[in-house]
Amino acid sequence: MTSVRRFRADRAHQVANVIRQQVVQGAFDRVLPNEPALMAEFGMSRNTIRAALDALRREGLVERVPGTGTVVAARKYSHELDQPLGLAEILHEHGTVTNQVRMAEHIKPPRTVAERLQRESAEGVVYIERLRWLNDLPLALDMTYLTMGIGKPLLAEDLTHQDLYALIEQTSGQRPSVADLHLEAVNADAHLATVLDVPRRAALLVIERLSQFDDHRPVGLEFIRLRGDRFSMHAQSRRRT
Amino acid sequence: MTSVRRFRADRAHQVANVIRQQVVQGAFDRVLPNEPALMAEFGMSRNTIRAALDALRREGLVERVPGTGTVVAARKYSHELDQPLGLAEILHEHGTVTNQVRMAEHIKPPRTVAERLQRESAEGVVYIERLRWLNDLPLALDMTYLTMGIGKPLLAEDLTHQDLYALIEQTSGQRPSVADLHLEAVNADAHLATVLDVPRRAALLVIERLSQFDDHRPVGLEFIRLRGDRFSMHAQSRRRT
Repeated sequence: MTSVRRFRADRAHQVANVIRQQVVQGAFDRVLPNEPALMAEFGMSRNTIRAALDALRREGLVERVPGTGTVVAARKYSHELDQPLGLAEILHEHGTVTNQVRMAEHIKPPRTVAERLQRESAEGVVYIERLRWLNDLPLALDMTYLTMGIGKPLLAEDLTHQDLYALIEQTSGQRPSVADLHLEAVNADAHLATVLDVPRRAALLVIERLSQFDDHRPVGLEFIRLRGDRFSMHAQSRRRT
Repeated sequence: MTSVRRFRADRAHQVANVIRQQVVQGAFDRVLPNEPALMAEFGMSRNTIRAALDALRREGLVERVPGTGTVVAARKYSHELDQPLGLAEILHEHGTVTNQVRMAEHIKPPRTVAERLQRESAEGVVYIERLRWLNDLPLALDMTYLTMGIGKPLLAEDLTHQDLYALIEQTSGQRPSVADLHLEAVNADAHLATVLDVPRRAALLVIERLSQFDDHRPVGLEFIRLRGDRFSMHAQSRRRT
């Protein structure tokens, strides 16, 4: 078995990796263990521990506070992938979600969107674009195409304060219960960086979600951009036998 | 209902969004529809269509070929999240996965890792770090902590050419069938950019995966970095009632 030579950067990365998951998942109340404690826990030198903490600081997850040590600077919101949930439902413990409605109207859909919704283009769809805030923080840009039957009644509803799933349940009496998701990591371009108030090239999560009712009737096709610095997606998988 | 003023950048983003999913998911054979066709499909001006294609070109998904038009430059490999699968299994249609073994040995685990594996730190774990290539392309860096009982026999096996899941099945007679996943989008730091051969700050997918046997006995804890430019993760969700 061949092993490559290990440099300090490799060891620091190995350590940073474990600590970063603890930070992201909220294992520390506020202050991280001090350097001697981390040296003992990981069996690594002080220089390696410092390099690991430096990497987390550059990522913006921790910061140094003189007299206190290294403290958590950013946690991430846990977003369940296993259930089709709206953002306000997911974040209800953390504050109020408010949506800036950037567009909400009937349009003739691109053919590929009509096909995914199993509709004819001529029928039209409802397009809703919303920038979603948690308290004072822009978190997500959602672009949603809804079938006309589902979408039209929503145009008279409170799109500023409600999840689409909740509104669909109110207006149609049924709730989308099945979703097919594609998820990617991309760099923010200039437009998205401005809209989501993140640095240019910041890592974003891109989700395409096709929502359906229980009988697999398509309801809507969403294109969602989430700030990578604020979300950790959670899923459970089980091998089909 | 308040709508914000829409600029060309917003309309271009709306168009780019739909086309990019078609590119990523392989809807086009090679050449994209020409500008008049896209103008008709989206009901947008030539300038808006061009701005949308420019955005996709900057992302590296398409490129212009004189005399041909806009062609697909990069597709992504679809990675199932719904089943615990190894990378060689996922990519078997696309080529051969080879692993550079960067480390494979017994270590005393950090306490948090021992806890996740429901083991005492004193017992030790097996740590395996591999850089994973598809043909000539580095795609993923995996850092895996395995319980001693599962990991020790693997150290005598062919870690260069096999998925860990397949090796665990061979050596233990059982296959990890349940996994708990946390997934994030992060920017590559200098170390990861070098190892994965991507630009500094390129978007990466970070996955933490706790694998278990069918009876929920922990098998291993993995920290995986995947190139964002090469993978699209797929999942299905169904609302629990």
